[in-house]
Amino acid sequence: MTQTVPAQARRVPRIRLGMVGGGQGAFIGAVHRIAARIDDQYELVAGCFSSTPEKSAASAAELGVGRAYGDFAQMAMREARRKDGIEAVAIVTPNHLHAPVARAFLKRGIHVICDKPLTATLPEARKLAGAAADSDALFVLTHNYTGYPMVRQARAMTLAGELGEIRLVQVEYAQDWLAEPIEQAGNKQAGWRTDPAQSGAGGAIGDIGTHAFNLAGFVTGLELEALAADLQSFVPGRAVDDNGHVLLRYRGGARGMLWCSQVASGCENALRLRVYGSRAGIEWAQEEPNALWVTPLGRPRYRLSRGGAGTGLEAARLTRIPAGHPEGYLEGFANIYAEAARAILARRDGAVPDPAATFPGIREGLEGVAFVDACLRSSKRNGAWVALAL
Amino acid sequence: MTQTVPAQARRVPRIRLGMVGGGQGAFIGAVHRIAARIDDQYELVAGCFSSTPEKSAASAAELGVGRAYGDFAQMAMREARRKDGIEAVAIVTPNHLHAPVARAFLKRGIHVICDKPLTATLPEARKLAGAAADSDALFVLTHNYTGYPMVRQARAMTLAGELGEIRLVQVEYAQDWLAEPIEQAGNKQAGWRTDPAQSGAGGAIGDIGTHAFNLAGFVTGLELEALAADLQSFVPGRAVDDNGHVLLRYRGGARGMLWCSQVASGCENALRLRVYGSRAGIEWAQEEPNALWVTPLGRPRYRLSRGGAGTGLEAARLTRIPAGHPEGYLEGFANIYAEAARAILARRDGAVPDPAATFPGIREGLEGVAFVDACLRSSKRNGAWVALAL
Amino acid sequence: MTQTVPAQARRVPRIRLGMVGGGQGAFIGAVHRIAARIDDQYELVAGCFSSTPEKSAASAAELGVGRAYGDFAQMAMREARRKDGIEAVAIVTPNHLHAPVARAFLKRGIHVICDKPLTATLPEARKLAGAAADSDALFVLTHNYTGYPMVRQARAMTLAGELGEIRLVQVEYAQDWLAEPIEQAGNKQAGWRTDPAQSGAGGAIGDIGTHAFNLAGFVTGLELEALAADLQSFVPGRAVDDNGHVLLRYRGGARGMLWCSQVASGCENALRLRVYGSRAGIEWAQEEPNALWVTPLGRPRYRLSRGGAGTGLEAARLTRIPAGHPEGYLEGFANIYAEAARAILARRDGAVPDPAATFPGIREGLEGVAFVDACLRSSKRNGAWVALAL
Amino acid sequence: MTQTVPAQARRVPRIRLGMVGGGQGAFIGAVHRIAARIDDQYELVAGCFSSTPEKSAASAAELGVGRAYGDFAQMAMREARRKDGIEAVAIVTPNHLHAPVARAFLKRGIHVICDKPLTATLPEARKLAGAAADSDALFVLTHNYTGYPMVRQARAMTLAGELGEIRLVQVEYAQDWLAEPIEQAGNKQAGWRTDPAQSGAGGAIGDIGTHAFNLAGFVTGLELEALAADLQSFVPGRAVDDNGHVLLRYRGGARGMLWCSQVASGCENALRLRVYGSRAGIEWAQEEPNALWVTPLGRPRYRLSRGGAGTGLEAARLTRIPAGHPEGYLEGFANIYAEAARAILARRDGAVPDPAATFPGIREGLEGVAFVDACLRSSKRNGAWVALAL
Repeated sequence: MTQTVPAQARRVPRIRLGMVGGGQGAFIGAVHRIAARIDDQYELVAGCFSSTPEKSAASAAELGVGRAYGDFAQMAMREARRKDGIEAVAIVTPNHLHAPVARAFLKRGIHVICDKPLTATLPEARKLAGAAADSDALFVLTHNYTGYPMVRQARAMTLAGELGEIRLVQVEYAQDWLAEPIEQAGNKQAGWRTDPAQSGAGGAIGDIGTHAFNLAGFVTGLELEALAADLQSFVPGRAVDDNGHVLLRYRGGARGMLWCSQVASGCENALRLRVYGSRAGIEWAQEEPNALWVTPLGRPRYRLSRGGAGTGLEAARLTRIPAGHPEGYLEGFANIYAEAARAILARRDGAVPDPAATFPGIREGLEGVAFVDACLRSSKRNGAWVALAL
Repeated sequence: MTQTVPAQARRVPRIRLGMVGGGQGAFIGAVHRIAARIDDQYELVAGCFSSTPEKSAASAAELGVGRAYGDFAQMAMREARRKDGIEAVAIVTPNHLHAPVARAFLKRGIHVICDKPLTATLPEARKLAGAAADSDALFVLTHNYTGYPMVRQARAMTLAGELGEIRLVQVEYAQDWLAEPIEQAGNKQAGWRTDPAQSGAGGAIGDIGTHAFNLAGFVTGLELEALAADLQSFVPGRAVDDNGHVLLRYRGGARGMLWCSQVASGCENALRLRVYGSRAGIEWAQEEPNALWVTPLGRPRYRLSRGGAGTGLEAARLTRIPAGHPEGYLEGFANIYAEAARAILARRDGAVPDPAATFPGIREGLEGVAFVDACLRSSKRNGAWVALAL
Repeated sequence: MTQTVPAQARRVPRIRLGMVGGGQGAFIGAVHRIAARIDDQYELVAGCFSSTPEKSAASAAELGVGRAYGDFAQMAMREARRKDGIEAVAIVTPNHLHAPVARAFLKRGIHVICDKPLTATLPEARKLAGAAADSDALFVLTHNYTGYPMVRQARAMTLAGELGEIRLVQVEYAQDWLAEPIEQAGNKQAGWRTDPAQSGAGGAIGDIGTHAFNLAGFVTGLELEALAADLQSFVPGRAVDDNGHVLLRYRGGARGMLWCSQVASGCENALRLRVYGSRAGIEWAQEEPNALWVTPLGRPRYRLSRGGAGTGLEAARLTRIPAGHPEGYLEGFANIYAEAARAILARRDGAVPDPAATFPGIREGLEGVAFVDACLRSSKRNGAWVALAL
Repeated sequence: MTQTVPAQARRVPRIRLGMVGGGQGAFIGAVHRIAARIDDQYELVAGCFSSTPEKSAASAAELGVGRAYGDFAQMAMREARRKDGIEAVAIVTPNHLHAPVARAFLKRGIHVICDKPLTATLPEARKLAGAAADSDALFVLTHNYTGYPMVRQARAMTLAGELGEIRLVQVEYAQDWLAEPIEQAGNKQAGWRTDPAQSGAGGAIGDIGTHAFNLAGFVTGLELEALAADLQSFVPGRAVDDNGHVLLRYRGGARGMLWCSQVASGCENALRLRVYGSRAGIEWAQEEPNALWVTPLGRPRYRLSRGGAGTGLEAARLTRIPAGHPEGYLEGFANIYAEAARAILARRDGAVPDPAATFPGIREGLEGVAFVDACLRSSKRNGAWVALAL
């Protein structure tokens, strides 16, 4: 009992991860790193944190990352050649760079974990979809809200038919951080997110409307037939929309509304989904993510809690701590990384991907960009009904 | 200290009230009677509770109402001739009878307190508006949700500019009681409310969409410029819409969405209004009517309570009991009667109406019917933008 | 169809009601009058609204009450002699007058509807209990919170064993209106309620602690074995307690805590009851009275709503309007009057009281005063366990 | 722009961490590891995960930890001798082992991060307090709820006097996982937590009552003068209390109540703190940890959100993501590790600890064990008032 026991090597070696973007001062890069770290399945070993080599190196030093690059193409090439090169790359740049960066790694067979929206334009998205189809590597899109366990629960119940035939989707994502023209006062986040050249032609509709659209599709499994959009730009001088109202028609007869806003005073990250079917409804809100309300017709409404009684395997699989101990945004984000790891490790073993690993991919990315495109087209045509141009 | 003191006559005699509709088994008639009773300012003295004289008399006997009629025209004529005839009449019939009944009393100079919607069709509404304009009598429309004290508070704050320039209106009214075809199984309420001949061509949009539309207008004071509507009828065999999605454009640039549904499983009477301006937002829900949330830009959100600190005179005027002791639907309804009483008593004194008495009237009624008409027109034209045809 | 139908007399004549106390400026008198009016089963025909005859007459005139008295004993005597004299009296004086007034009417066979607490002292309470036992008249105590439909639902579920064996009671009633010494600044309500001569030796414990204690007993049916109390008076110069902490031991093994406070900043009328049994728990809050939470062991928590699915007959019986249309404090209070009417009318018919009519009576009143007495005794003995001295 | 940049060494090397306990199947060990990982300031390099060497080695291999021990004393000795030995150790064993393990590391100058409660008995706690006082190493106790940003906000506001003079503390921690005798059915967690030999004589009062007590003290800064406790064991055959009711008297006049339960059906981890002062109150609940309610006297209640407007530096310092993106239990736990890292790194630099680093330590640990001891003594004496025997 008193001897030191020499530790064996880690039974499942961590996935070697690289990152493009996410240098000092960036928000979403830090989120991806925490998400990758929470379950200890990834090790960040290389990065192109900036296109300025010195800045990239400085970020790497701060983070303790061994290999720093100033050029993502170089990074893709060199990492692909190394025996200990990265197995996957996280792309956390502004939107307009997603496509070229992703293609560089995909063509080297390196798995891609890419922030949303997929690209800034629809042609780019289609091209990237082609590249992904041609690659053996996985493509994971971090529509992170799909990682919340109670969103998984909602999806499982909906797909299992517990709601009956789905009739209605009400989804919204409201913020207020762009209620004033802070991009004109030098706010960096606001700057690129309201710049069509970096962010794409969609403003709120691209930044958060896509999350709402994706979430509704993820939970219901419904396919959009047509939409009618009325986009607005309330803040004078703003180059993109900061609010959007969209009517939805899904194949099979379900109807819906989508609201996204970055000027709704007092709203923080109020993403909320409600789905009503012929037998029951569900209600979920990102700001209270550990609960899922179920509202059966003719019975009392009840509250499922993450980890609690009545919550099923799909949610349990992505749950770390007991009911009543809240998990949050970072854990939900980490679940996308956990699902990706499951698929990546299956590939590493030469096995087929674990069928249970569920995450948004290239298809969802293309749909998201097509959604933005359709909203812009409809809005320009005074709210005419249009279909997604996939 | 030990003598009986002969009581003087009541200082302000009660308003003599009649009722048309509201016989045995009716829902809204009983609500009107309670609302009229709560503050003891009305006395129900005559009624045409049914067009079957015996049924009308039976209801009168049950209620202790002195004079029963089987014909509303007779009632109007005879009551107008009596010295102690009714001063006001409450109309609680199905929608298609509102217009003829109201006109009968208006032309005799008897004040009308009419349930909503104003009429079943737009031509009728216009005609009734003309009759109201020609009469000296008051016309009160019981859009009862405007009677809630915290709705008054919201209106006062909004009109005083505390929200800044209004940008967004999100309003919804969701129920589930028509999620199944109960009108085909003999449910009486469902029967007339889904029968275009009695209720008008609008289903959910007329029954509850009008409440949502009215509430938004009451609180914001905004005038609608155009709307685009997508109405649905989810339940097979239903003759009218049971769900509606409407995009709103107000004069001055505010935009909005309106959702009404009678098939949203688990929703009871979920009327909810959110308004966001350039400086602050407000949020109110009928199912928790004693609270008003205020969400100022850049400051913490706070909760005003009926009767509580920070709540102003407009709400206090219509409040009976202390903060934390909830008031509900009946008290809100009674506030419409209280406001009407204020105006009626001012007329009785030959005075001009109390400027503080605020209640929906013929204008709001006409707008409501025009709203339904516009929604139906837009929906038939696949969601084209249309204006109200006032 | 066009003839006037002579109305018959009211089928069930209203109960002739008198009132003692409740003159101009009083709070609870007005509440009783509204409560009596809501269901139209009472007619207020006589009152001793003040011991100053002119004031009593002035209140009567304002209210339209036919007979005014300046002396309650005269009132009892004379009303008892009249053929059309009152059948019941509402007592809404300060606490120290409850006993003499109630006795005067009880001995004349007039039903008593008395505000709580029963009396200001325990000896008085016992004496009054004796008088009630000797009288054929009914004694109704307006522990109004027992009138809320969802409290009835809670009681029905608890008594039916749906919670299993009851283990825990957590009950609290928190206010803040006495957080500052407003009684020293002339506030009339605060004045008598903090004056031991008018209110009794208990302050918060008597005014609202009794409500909490009564509510817990009403819902659980449990009998108190012993309590240990720690009462405080936080505001300098206050003559009575303004906060109380009480440990409870019920017969059969259940344990509990009771907190009452009138100095809890930001609390309005936060009466809240939680009961936990071996199989399920329930949670109810007065400020959201239309909901009852049920928390079964090993199943998701669910929310019963007044008028909604899963809510039983005991609640339905005292419900006026559909689910989602909130009822409030006044309707709950009116339910006590409705239950009293049920019993009074049964007596009028010479029938036995309707077994379904449930309301707090003399027994609950005596227990409430004994509860205050026990808390004061325990607190003086530094929180020693004491039993109620019934 | 196209060259690889050689990464420099990490600017601030991670803290080398060891762990005692927390092998396969343990709950709290995994939580500590995630908490240490989230901010990437620790590296787990050694562990005594079990007293069975093979099991310890197996856990190490699974976790990728380089050095495994089967004996904590050996581990302390050997790690202290290595140049690259651990700088800190996390102790996540059952309670009765905390003291010997902690002393072994403290006397080698290795910082200790220990789970709560400090020890299973009061004499042990005192002895350990002595050892901590004699050591230069830091002692950190993971009363993790103090790590929530909004708890920090509450503390900052309270200590700054924004609540005025504190009058009332209402704190509770309710669970239901021991509502049935699962320890008799082989549940391992339940087994040791209800075994006095491993957990100490306190059951619920030790496991979660201490959290509630600590939280109240952390937020208010108040010192307990005396308590009166009524502990119960509702489940037949249970060796320790599973529910506790405690009255609190703080120095300076504040009073309080504490409720802890592991048999409250439907409660998950319902830790809730309410503090009321002469000027304002605050309310916080662990299950919605991103909000702090502030209830000022005479002003509307408002909701501070983590990361949101009006929330101060103490909370911002421990916040990772924007308002409306919820953080949860793991992030709060990680904040204790972050605060510890701040202090450890300051020691590494030979500097004095950062004065801003705030975490529960040996003092709070001793108070917690003394609290349990006092509750047990009081309860045995039928709820007599007793002081903590520090």
